Amino acid sequence: MRLRLTIAYLGTRYRGWQLQAGHPDQPSIQGKLEEALGRLAGGPVRVFGSGRTDTGVHAEGQTAHCDIPDGCFRRVPDMRHALNALLPEDIRVFSAVPCAPDFHARVSARAKTYRYRFWQERAFVPPWEAPFVWPCGRLDTGAMEEALPYLRGRHDFASLANTGSDPADTEREIYRLSLSPEPAGNWPACLPGLRLEVEGSGFLRQMVRNMAGLLAYIGQGRVAPSDIPGLLAARKRGLLPSPTAPARGLTLVRVLYPGD
Amino acid sequence: MRLRLTIAYLGTRYRGWQLQAGHPDQPSIQGKLEEALGRLAGGPVRVFGSGRTDTGVHAEGQTAHCDIPDGCFRRVPDMRHALNALLPEDIRVFSAVPCAPDFHARVSARAKTYRYRFWQERAFVPPWEAPFVWPCGRLDTGAMEEALPYLRGRHDFASLANTGSDPADTEREIYRLSLSPEPAGNWPACLPGLRLEVEGSGFLRQMVRNMAGLLAYIGQGRVAPSDIPGLLAARKRGLLPSPTAPARGLTLVRVLYPGD
Repeated sequence: MRLRLTIAYLGTRYRGWQLQAGHPDQPSIQGKLEEALGRLAGGPVRVFGSGRTDTGVHAEGQTAHCDIPDGCFRRVPDMRHALNALLPEDIRVFSAVPCAPDFHARVSARAKTYRYRFWQERAFVPPWEAPFVWPCGRLDTGAMEEALPYLRGRHDFASLANTGSDPADTEREIYRLSLSPEPAGNWPACLPGLRLEVEGSGFLRQMVRNMAGLLAYIGQGRVAPSDIPGLLAARKRGLLPSPTAPARGLTLVRVLYPGD
Repeated sequence: MRLRLTIAYLGTRYRGWQLQAGHPDQPSIQGKLEEALGRLAGGPVRVFGSGRTDTGVHAEGQTAHCDIPDGCFRRVPDMRHALNALLPEDIRVFSAVPCAPDFHARVSARAKTYRYRFWQERAFVPPWEAPFVWPCGRLDTGAMEEALPYLRGRHDFASLANTGSDPADTEREIYRLSLSPEPAGNWPACLPGLRLEVEGSGFLRQMVRNMAGLLAYIGQGRVAPSDIPGLLAARKRGLLPSPTAPARGLTLVRVLYPGD
Protein backbone atom coordinates (compact mmCIF):
# COMPACT_ATOMS: atom_id res chain seq x y z
CA MET A 1 0.00 0.00 0.00
CA ARG A 2 1.27 3.45 -0.94
CA LEU A 3 1.31 6.18 1.72
CA ARG A 4 1.42 9.92 1.13
CA LEU A 5 3.18 11.81 3.91
CA THR A 6 3.11 15.55 4.65
CA ILE A 7 6.04 16.46 6.87
CA ALA A 8 7.26 19.53 8.75
CA TYR A 9 10.78 19.87 10.11
CA LEU A 10 13.40 22.22 11.43
CA GLY A 11 16.44 21.72 9.26
CA THR A 12 18.84 23.10 11.87
CA ARG A 13 20.04 19.77 13.29
CA TYR A 14 19.95 17.80 10.04
CA ARG A 15 22.12 17.14 7.07
CA GLY A 16 19.26 18.00 4.76
CA TRP A 17 16.47 15.81 3.49
CA GLN A 18 18.52 13.23 1.67
CA LEU A 19 19.87 10.10 3.29
CA GLN A 20 23.66 10.36 3.33
CA ALA A 21 26.20 7.68 4.01
CA GLY A 22 29.06 8.48 6.35
CA HIS A 23 27.46 11.16 8.52
CA PRO A 24 26.29 9.33 11.62
CA ASP A 25 26.46 12.52 13.74
CA GLN A 26 24.18 14.58 11.55
CA PRO A 27 21.27 12.47 10.38
CA SER A 28 18.98 13.27 7.46
CA ILE A 29 15.21 13.80 7.59
CA GLN A 30 14.70 10.96 5.11
CA GLY A 31 16.83 8.69 7.30
CA LYS A 32 14.80 9.48 10.42
CA LEU A 33 11.53 8.81 8.56
CA GLU A 34 12.79 5.52 7.13
CA GLU A 35 13.89 4.44 10.60
CA ALA A 36 10.46 5.15 12.10
CA LEU A 37 8.53 3.64 9.17
CA GLY A 38 10.77 0.60 9.21
CA ARG A 39 9.92 -0.03 12.86
CA LEU A 40 6.17 0.21 12.16
CA ALA A 41 6.35 -1.88 8.98
CA GLY A 42 8.64 -4.48 10.48
CA GLY A 43 11.14 -4.21 7.63
CA PRO A 44 13.02 -1.68 5.51
CA VAL A 45 10.93 1.11 3.93
CA ARG A 46 12.27 3.52 1.30
CA VAL A 47 10.89 7.09 1.42
CA PHE A 48 10.74 9.27 -1.72
CA GLY A 49 10.54 13.01 -1.20
CA SER A 50 9.24 15.70 -3.56
CA GLY A 51 12.84 16.88 -3.74
CA ARG A 52 15.84 17.41 -1.51
CA THR A 53 16.15 20.25 0.92
CA ASP A 54 19.70 21.33 1.77
CA THR A 55 21.34 21.15 5.19
CA GLY A 56 19.63 23.70 7.44
CA VAL A 57 16.59 24.31 5.22
CA HIS A 58 13.21 23.95 6.97
CA ALA A 59 9.88 22.58 5.76
CA GLU A 60 6.26 23.23 6.70
CA GLY A 61 4.83 20.94 4.04
CA GLN A 62 7.41 18.62 2.49
CA THR A 63 5.66 15.74 0.75
CA ALA A 64 6.88 12.17 0.38
CA HIS A 65 5.58 8.73 -0.50
CA CYS A 66 6.50 5.20 0.50
CA ASP A 67 5.15 1.68 0.18
CA ILE A 68 4.30 -0.31 3.28
CA PRO A 69 2.91 -3.83 3.64
CA ASP A 70 -0.92 -3.91 3.43
CA GLY A 71 -1.21 -5.45 6.88
CA CYS A 72 0.61 -2.52 8.45
CA PHE A 73 -2.43 -0.21 8.52
CA ARG A 74 -4.49 -2.82 10.34
CA ARG A 75 -1.88 -3.09 13.06
CA VAL A 76 -1.21 0.68 13.11
CA PRO A 77 -4.52 2.42 12.37
CA ASP A 78 -3.28 5.93 13.27
CA MET A 79 -0.07 6.04 11.27
CA ARG A 80 0.51 9.76 11.85
CA HIS A 81 0.31 9.34 15.61
CA ALA A 82 2.53 6.25 15.60
CA LEU A 83 5.18 7.97 13.44
CA ASN A 84 5.22 11.12 15.58
CA ALA A 85 5.69 8.99 18.69
CA LEU A 86 8.88 7.55 17.15
CA LEU A 87 10.25 10.74 15.53
CA PRO A 88 12.24 13.50 17.24
CA GLU A 89 10.09 16.55 17.97
CA ASP A 90 11.79 18.68 15.30
CA ILE A 91 10.32 16.36 12.64
CA ARG A 92 6.51 16.05 12.61
CA VAL A 93 4.29 14.09 10.27
CA PHE A 94 1.27 16.25 9.59
CA SER A 95 -0.58 13.57 7.68
CA ALA A 96 0.05 9.97 6.61
CA VAL A 97 -2.76 8.71 4.37
CA PRO A 98 -3.16 5.97 1.74
CA CYS A 99 -2.91 7.29 -1.82
CA ALA A 100 -3.14 6.04 -5.42
CA PRO A 101 -0.43 3.46 -6.22
CA ASP A 102 0.87 5.71 -9.03
CA PHE A 103 1.26 8.79 -6.81
CA HIS A 104 4.91 9.85 -6.84
CA ALA A 105 6.01 12.68 -4.54
CA ARG A 106 8.57 14.03 -7.03
CA VAL A 107 7.16 13.10 -10.43
CA SER A 108 3.51 13.99 -9.67
CA ALA A 109 4.35 17.41 -8.14
CA ARG A 110 2.85 20.33 -10.10
CA ALA A 111 4.19 23.26 -8.09
CA LYS A 112 6.19 24.14 -5.00
CA THR A 113 6.08 27.13 -2.71
CA TYR A 114 9.09 28.39 -0.78
CA ARG A 115 9.48 31.23 1.70
CA TYR A 116 12.72 33.12 2.28
CA ARG A 117 13.07 35.47 5.26
CA PHE A 118 15.44 38.45 5.30
CA TRP A 119 16.28 40.17 8.59
CA GLN A 120 17.20 43.84 8.26
CA GLU A 121 19.11 44.22 11.54
CA ARG A 122 22.47 42.68 10.92
CA ALA A 123 23.58 43.08 14.54
CA PHE A 124 20.41 42.07 16.29
CA VAL A 125 18.22 39.05 15.69
CA PRO A 126 15.78 37.96 18.43
CA PRO A 127 16.85 34.47 19.58
CA TRP A 128 13.64 32.79 18.42
CA GLU A 129 14.04 34.23 14.89
CA ALA A 130 17.71 33.35 14.49
CA PRO A 131 17.18 29.82 13.10
CA PHE A 132 14.83 31.14 10.40
CA VAL A 133 16.25 34.38 8.98
CA TRP A 134 19.23 35.82 7.12
CA PRO A 135 20.51 38.93 8.90
CA CYS A 136 21.58 40.74 5.75
CA GLY A 137 21.13 44.35 6.89
CA ARG A 138 18.88 47.14 5.65
CA LEU A 139 17.22 46.57 2.27
CA ASP A 140 15.61 48.95 -0.23
CA THR A 141 12.30 47.16 -0.69
CA GLY A 142 11.32 49.49 -3.55
CA ALA A 143 14.24 48.28 -5.66
CA MET A 144 13.50 44.65 -4.73
CA GLU A 145 9.83 45.07 -5.74
CA GLU A 146 11.02 46.50 -9.04
CA ALA A 147 13.09 43.37 -9.62
CA LEU A 148 10.28 40.85 -9.12
CA PRO A 149 8.61 41.19 -12.58
CA TYR A 150 11.94 40.25 -14.24
CA LEU A 151 11.87 36.93 -12.42
CA ARG A 152 8.18 36.00 -12.75
CA GLY A 153 7.09 33.75 -15.60
CA ARG A 154 8.98 31.19 -17.67
CA HIS A 155 12.75 31.69 -17.89
CA ASP A 156 15.95 29.77 -18.25
CA PHE A 157 17.25 29.95 -14.67
CA ALA A 158 20.69 28.34 -15.27
CA SER A 159 22.32 31.49 -13.83
CA LEU A 160 20.58 30.83 -10.51
CA ALA A 161 21.49 27.14 -10.31
CA ASN A 162 24.45 25.84 -8.36
CA THR A 163 26.31 22.84 -9.72
CA GLY A 164 24.32 19.67 -9.37
CA SER A 165 21.41 20.71 -11.61
CA ASP A 166 20.95 19.04 -14.97
CA PRO A 167 22.46 21.64 -17.40
CA ALA A 168 20.15 20.48 -20.23
CA ASP A 169 16.91 21.27 -18.41
CA THR A 170 17.09 24.66 -16.73
CA GLU A 171 13.82 26.27 -17.79
CA ARG A 172 11.29 26.77 -15.01
CA GLU A 173 8.13 28.83 -14.53
CA ILE A 174 7.60 31.15 -11.57
CA TYR A 175 3.85 31.45 -11.01
CA ARG A 176 3.94 33.77 -8.04
CA LEU A 177 6.66 35.91 -6.47
CA SER A 178 5.95 38.42 -3.73
CA LEU A 179 7.77 40.36 -1.05
CA SER A 180 6.06 41.52 2.14
CA PRO A 181 7.14 43.11 5.42
CA GLU A 182 6.58 41.07 8.56
CA PRO A 183 4.91 42.44 11.69
CA ALA A 184 7.52 44.28 13.74
CA GLY A 185 6.85 42.32 16.94
CA ASN A 186 7.93 43.51 20.35
CA TRP A 187 11.22 44.98 19.18
CA PRO A 188 10.52 48.69 18.71
CA ALA A 189 14.07 49.50 17.65
CA CYS A 190 14.03 46.80 14.97
CA LEU A 191 13.30 47.14 11.29
CA PRO A 192 10.71 44.56 10.25
CA GLY A 193 11.74 41.30 8.61
CA LEU A 194 10.98 40.78 4.92
CA ARG A 195 9.34 37.69 3.55
CA LEU A 196 9.83 36.46 -0.01
CA GLU A 197 7.26 33.93 -1.20
CA VAL A 198 7.82 32.11 -4.46
CA GLU A 199 5.68 29.51 -6.17
CA GLY A 200 6.97 27.77 -9.26
CA SER A 201 6.69 24.69 -11.45
CA GLY A 202 9.95 23.46 -9.99
CA PHE A 203 13.30 24.76 -8.84
CA LEU A 204 16.90 24.10 -9.79
CA ARG A 205 19.53 23.34 -7.18
CA GLN A 206 19.72 26.27 -4.70
CA MET A 207 17.67 28.40 -7.10
CA VAL A 208 15.56 30.05 -4.37
CA ARG A 209 18.63 30.80 -2.27
CA ASN A 210 20.40 32.29 -5.30
CA MET A 211 17.28 34.33 -6.07
CA ALA A 212 17.24 35.55 -2.44
CA GLY A 213 20.94 36.42 -2.64
CA LEU A 214 20.39 38.35 -5.87
CA LEU A 215 17.39 40.22 -4.44
CA ALA A 216 19.39 41.16 -1.32
CA TYR A 217 22.14 42.59 -3.56
CA ILE A 218 19.46 44.56 -5.38
CA GLY A 219 18.08 45.76 -2.03
CA GLN A 220 21.59 46.85 -1.09
CA GLY A 221 22.02 48.79 -4.34
CA ARG A 222 24.80 46.54 -5.62
CA VAL A 223 22.84 45.21 -8.61
CA ALA A 224 20.15 47.11 -10.58
CA PRO A 225 16.76 45.42 -11.19
CA SER A 226 17.26 46.01 -14.93
CA ASP A 227 20.45 43.91 -14.81
CA ILE A 228 18.38 40.75 -14.29
CA PRO A 229 17.54 39.94 -17.93
CA GLY A 230 21.25 40.09 -18.84
CA LEU A 231 22.24 37.94 -15.88
CA LEU A 232 19.61 35.32 -16.81
CA ALA A 233 20.62 35.39 -20.50
CA ALA A 234 24.24 34.68 -19.54
CA ARG A 235 23.18 31.24 -18.21
CA LYS A 236 26.25 31.17 -15.94
CA ARG A 237 26.09 31.02 -12.13
CA GLY A 238 29.69 32.26 -12.13
CA LEU A 239 28.63 35.63 -13.57
CA LEU A 240 26.11 36.26 -10.78
CA PRO A 241 27.77 38.79 -8.45
CA SER A 242 25.60 37.86 -5.44
CA PRO A 243 26.06 35.00 -2.96
CA THR A 244 23.82 32.00 -2.35
CA ALA A 245 21.70 33.14 0.60
CA PRO A 246 22.11 31.07 3.80
CA ALA A 247 20.01 27.92 4.14
CA ARG A 248 18.46 28.87 7.48
CA GLY A 249 16.27 31.57 5.89
CA LEU A 250 14.56 29.07 3.58
CA THR A 251 11.39 27.05 4.22
CA LEU A 252 9.63 24.68 1.83
CA VAL A 253 6.03 25.77 2.46
CA ARG A 254 4.03 23.32 0.35
CA VAL A 255 4.08 20.99 -2.65
CA LEU A 256 1.05 20.99 -4.92
CA TYR A 257 -0.32 17.90 -6.71
CA PRO A 258 -3.12 17.44 -9.27
CA GLY A 259 -6.43 17.29 -7.43
CA ASP A 260 -5.22 19.19 -4.33
CA MET B 1 29.15 53.11 36.16
CA ARG B 2 25.91 51.19 36.46
CA LEU B 3 24.46 49.54 33.35
CA ARG B 4 20.86 48.47 32.82
CA LEU B 5 20.51 45.49 30.49
CA THR B 6 17.40 44.20 28.73
CA ILE B 7 17.94 40.62 27.62
CA ALA B 8 16.09 38.03 25.53
CA TYR B 9 16.94 34.35 25.57
CA LEU B 10 15.78 30.88 24.70
CA GLY B 11 15.96 28.91 27.93
CA THR B 12 16.14 25.54 26.14
CA ARG B 13 19.92 25.06 26.30
CA TYR B 14 20.47 26.69 29.69
CA ARG B 15 20.34 25.76 33.32
CA GLY B 16 18.16 28.78 34.02
CA TRP B 17 19.16 32.34 34.73
CA GLN B 18 21.18 31.80 37.86
CA LEU B 19 24.90 31.05 37.85
CA GLN B 20 25.37 27.52 39.18
CA ALA B 21 28.52 25.84 40.31
CA GLY B 22 29.22 22.31 39.12
CA HIS B 23 27.31 22.32 35.84
CA PRO B 24 29.93 23.02 33.17
CA ASP B 25 27.85 21.29 30.44
CA GLN B 26 24.75 23.37 30.90
CA PRO B 27 25.69 26.98 31.46
CA SER B 28 23.42 29.68 32.92
CA ILE B 29 22.30 32.90 31.23
CA GLN B 30 23.85 34.95 34.03
CA GLY B 31 27.12 33.07 33.57
CA LYS B 32 27.21 33.76 29.83
CA LEU B 33 26.52 37.46 30.42
CA GLU B 34 29.19 37.75 33.13
CA GLU B 35 31.68 36.07 30.81
CA ALA B 36 30.97 38.54 27.97
CA LEU B 37 30.89 41.61 30.26
CA GLY B 38 34.09 40.48 31.96
CA ARG B 39 35.87 40.40 28.61
CA LEU B 40 34.70 43.91 27.74
CA ALA B 41 35.42 45.32 31.21
CA GLY B 42 38.78 43.60 31.51
CA GLY B 43 37.89 42.07 34.88
CA PRO B 44 35.14 40.22 36.73
CA VAL B 45 31.63 41.73 36.52
CA ARG B 46 28.70 40.53 38.62
CA VAL B 47 25.27 40.65 36.96
CA PHE B 48 22.07 41.04 39.04
CA GLY B 49 18.83 39.92 37.41
CA SER B 50 15.26 40.97 38.21
CA GLY B 51 14.79 37.40 39.38
CA ARG B 52 15.70 33.87 38.41
CA THR B 53 14.10 32.03 35.57
CA ASP B 54 14.10 28.22 35.84
CA THR B 55 15.86 25.80 33.51
CA GLY B 56 14.07 25.92 30.14
CA VAL B 57 12.12 29.15 30.78
CA HIS B 58 12.48 31.81 28.07
CA ALA B 59 12.66 35.59 28.26
CA GLU B 60 11.78 38.40 25.89
CA GLY B 61 12.59 41.17 28.35
CA GLN B 62 14.56 39.99 31.36
CA THR B 63 16.20 42.98 33.05
CA ALA B 64 19.52 43.06 34.89
CA HIS B 65 22.07 45.54 36.17
CA CYS B 66 25.82 45.48 36.65
CA ASP B 67 28.66 47.86 37.46
CA ILE B 68 31.47 48.36 34.98
CA PRO B 69 34.55 50.56 35.18
CA ASP B 70 33.85 54.13 33.94
CA GLY B 71 36.47 53.85 31.22
CA CYS B 72 34.74 50.86 29.69
CA PHE B 73 32.12 52.91 27.81
CA ARG B 74 34.80 55.08 26.20
CA ARG B 75 36.55 51.97 24.87
CA VAL B 76 33.27 50.20 23.96
CA PRO B 77 30.81 52.89 22.85
CA ASP B 78 28.20 50.42 21.51
CA MET B 79 27.94 48.06 24.45
CA ARG B 80 24.88 46.23 23.09
CA HIS B 81 26.65 45.46 19.83
CA ALA B 82 29.86 44.38 21.58
CA LEU B 83 27.98 42.08 23.97
CA ASN B 84 25.94 40.45 21.20
CA ALA B 85 29.13 39.78 19.25
CA LEU B 86 30.43 37.77 22.23
CA LEU B 87 27.18 36.03 23.26
CA PRO B 88 25.69 32.89 21.69
CA GLU B 89 22.78 33.69 19.36
CA ASP B 90 20.17 32.28 21.73
CA ILE B 91 21.01 35.10 24.18
CA ARG B 92 20.58 38.66 22.87
CA VAL B 93 21.06 41.95 24.66
CA PHE B 94 18.28 44.22 23.48
CA SER B 95 19.65 47.27 25.25
CA ALA B 96 22.62 48.11 27.47
CA VAL B 97 22.42 51.69 28.74
CA PRO B 98 23.83 53.66 31.69
CA CYS B 99 21.33 54.06 34.53
CA ALA B 100 21.06 55.69 37.97
CA PRO B 101 23.58 54.26 40.46
CA ASP B 102 20.73 53.21 42.74
CA PHE B 103 18.84 51.27 40.06
CA HIS B 104 18.54 47.64 41.15
CA ALA B 105 17.04 45.11 38.72
CA ARG B 106 15.34 43.10 41.49
CA VAL B 107 14.63 45.66 44.21
CA SER B 108 13.45 48.47 41.90
CA ALA B 109 11.08 46.22 39.88
CA ARG B 110 7.41 47.26 40.18
CA ALA B 111 5.76 44.56 38.08
CA LYS B 112 6.50 41.58 35.87
CA THR B 113 4.63 40.12 32.94
CA TYR B 114 4.77 36.44 32.02
CA ARG B 115 3.21 34.49 29.17
CA TYR B 116 2.30 30.82 29.34
CA ARG B 117 1.36 28.91 26.16
CA PHE B 118 -0.90 25.84 26.16
CA TRP B 119 -1.07 23.59 23.09
CA GLN B 120 -4.35 21.75 22.67
CA GLU B 121 -3.10 18.95 20.40
CA ARG B 122 -1.31 16.54 22.66
CA ALA B 123 -0.12 14.37 19.77
CA PHE B 124 0.90 17.06 17.32
CA VAL B 125 3.01 20.14 17.90
CA PRO B 126 4.59 21.90 14.88
CA PRO B 127 8.38 21.64 15.30
CA TRP B 128 8.87 25.42 15.61
CA GLU B 129 6.31 25.64 18.42
CA ALA B 130 7.62 22.68 20.42
CA PRO B 131 10.21 24.62 22.47
CA PHE B 132 7.55 27.15 23.58
CA VAL B 133 4.34 25.28 24.41
CA TRP B 134 2.88 22.70 26.76
CA PRO B 135 0.95 20.05 24.77
CA CYS B 136 -1.69 19.45 27.43
CA GLY B 137 -4.62 18.43 25.20
CA ARG B 138 -8.01 19.99 24.61
CA LEU B 139 -9.09 22.64 27.12
CA ASP B 140 -12.48 24.10 28.02
CA THR B 141 -11.63 27.78 27.70
CA GLY B 142 -15.00 28.80 29.16
CA ALA B 143 -14.18 27.13 32.47
CA MET B 144 -10.68 28.65 32.44
CA GLU B 145 -12.10 32.13 31.81
CA GLU B 146 -14.44 31.60 34.75
CA ALA B 147 -11.43 30.82 36.94
CA LEU B 148 -9.48 33.99 36.17
CA PRO B 149 -11.41 36.40 38.46
CA TYR B 150 -10.59 34.16 41.45
CA LEU B 151 -6.88 34.70 40.80
CA ARG B 152 -6.86 38.41 39.98
CA GLY B 153 -6.09 40.93 42.72
CA ARG B 154 -4.20 40.59 46.01
CA HIS B 155 -4.05 37.07 47.47
CA ASP B 156 -1.86 34.86 49.56
CA PHE B 157 -0.43 32.58 46.86
CA ALA B 158 1.42 30.12 49.15
CA SER B 159 -0.59 27.27 47.59
CA LEU B 160 0.95 28.08 44.21
CA ALA B 161 4.54 28.32 45.46
CA ASN B 162 7.00 25.47 45.25
CA THR B 163 9.55 25.10 48.03
CA GLY B 164 12.20 27.76 47.89
CA SER B 165 9.85 30.72 48.43
CA ASP B 166 10.01 32.65 51.69
CA PRO B 167 7.02 31.19 53.63
CA ALA B 168 6.56 34.46 55.59
CA ASP B 169 5.95 36.62 52.52
CA THR B 170 3.55 34.92 50.15
CA GLU B 171 1.11 37.72 49.37
CA ARG B 172 1.23 39.06 45.83
CA GLU B 173 -1.01 41.15 43.61
CA ILE B 174 -2.10 40.06 40.13
CA TYR B 175 -2.84 43.21 38.13
CA ARG B 176 -3.80 41.57 34.89
CA LEU B 177 -4.65 38.01 33.91
CA SER B 178 -6.03 37.07 30.51
CA LEU B 179 -6.44 34.07 28.26
CA SER B 180 -6.60 34.35 24.47
CA PRO B 181 -6.59 31.94 21.53
CA GLU B 182 -3.65 32.15 19.16
CA PRO B 183 -4.00 32.36 15.37
CA ALA B 184 -4.44 28.84 14.03
CA GLY B 185 -1.55 29.12 11.54
CA ASN B 186 -1.15 26.77 8.62
CA TRP B 187 -2.34 23.68 10.44
CA PRO B 188 -6.00 23.33 9.52
CA ALA B 189 -6.49 20.15 11.55
CA CYS B 190 -5.06 21.79 14.69
CA LEU B 191 -6.91 23.42 17.55
CA PRO B 192 -5.42 26.85 18.22
CA GLY B 193 -2.92 27.38 21.00
CA LEU B 194 -3.97 29.31 24.12
CA ARG B 195 -1.99 32.13 25.60
CA LEU B 196 -2.14 33.09 29.27
CA GLU B 197 -0.74 36.53 30.09
CA VAL B 198 -0.24 37.53 33.69
CA GLU B 199 1.09 40.75 35.13
CA GLY B 200 1.73 41.02 38.85
CA SER B 201 3.63 42.85 41.56
CA GLY B 202 5.91 39.83 41.85
CA PHE B 203 5.78 36.06 41.74
CA LEU B 204 6.66 33.25 44.13
CA ARG B 205 8.82 30.34 43.06
CA GLN B 206 7.14 28.55 40.10
CA MET B 207 3.93 30.47 40.81
CA VAL B 208 3.09 31.09 37.14
CA ARG B 209 3.76 27.47 36.24
CA ASN B 210 1.57 26.30 39.14
CA MET B 211 -1.14 28.72 38.03
CA ALA B 212 -0.88 27.35 34.48
CA GLY B 213 -1.07 23.78 35.80
CA LEU B 214 -4.15 24.64 37.87
CA LEU B 215 -5.84 26.37 34.93
CA ALA B 216 -5.14 23.36 32.68
CA TYR B 217 -6.78 21.09 35.27
CA ILE B 218 -9.77 23.44 35.29
CA GLY B 219 -9.83 23.37 31.47
CA GLN B 220 -9.82 19.56 31.66
CA GLY B 221 -12.74 19.54 34.12
CA ARG B 222 -10.68 18.06 36.96
CA VAL B 223 -10.96 21.12 39.22
CA ALA B 224 -13.91 23.55 39.37
CA PRO B 225 -13.24 27.30 39.12
CA SER B 226 -15.09 27.77 42.42
CA ASP B 227 -12.55 25.48 44.14
CA ILE B 228 -9.88 28.17 43.81
CA PRO B 229 -10.69 30.24 46.94
CA GLY B 230 -10.50 27.11 49.09
CA LEU B 231 -7.23 25.98 47.48
CA LEU B 232 -5.68 29.42 48.06
CA ALA B 233 -6.96 29.57 51.66
CA ALA B 234 -5.29 26.23 52.40
CA ARG B 235 -1.87 27.85 51.84
CA LYS B 236 -0.36 24.43 51.03
CA ARG B 237 1.18 23.51 47.67
CA GLY B 238 0.71 19.87 48.69
CA LEU B 239 -3.08 20.21 48.57
CA LEU B 240 -3.07 21.50 44.98
CA PRO B 241 -4.18 18.55 42.81
CA SER B 242 -2.58 19.92 39.62
CA PRO B 243 1.04 19.65 38.44
CA THR B 244 3.60 22.42 37.93
CA ALA B 245 3.28 23.16 34.20
CA PRO B 246 6.44 22.48 32.14
CA ALA B 247 9.06 25.24 31.98
CA ARG B 248 9.17 25.39 28.17
CA GLY B 249 5.72 27.02 27.96
CA LEU B 250 6.81 30.01 30.06
CA THR B 251 8.30 33.31 28.88
CA LEU B 252 9.22 36.33 31.02
CA VAL B 253 7.82 39.06 28.78
CA ARG B 254 8.88 42.23 30.60
CA VAL B 255 9.87 43.79 33.91
CA LEU B 256 8.44 47.19 34.76
CA TYR B 257 10.33 49.90 36.72
CA PRO B 258 9.26 53.32 38.02
CA GLY B 259 9.51 55.83 35.20
CA ASP B 260 9.15 53.24 32.39
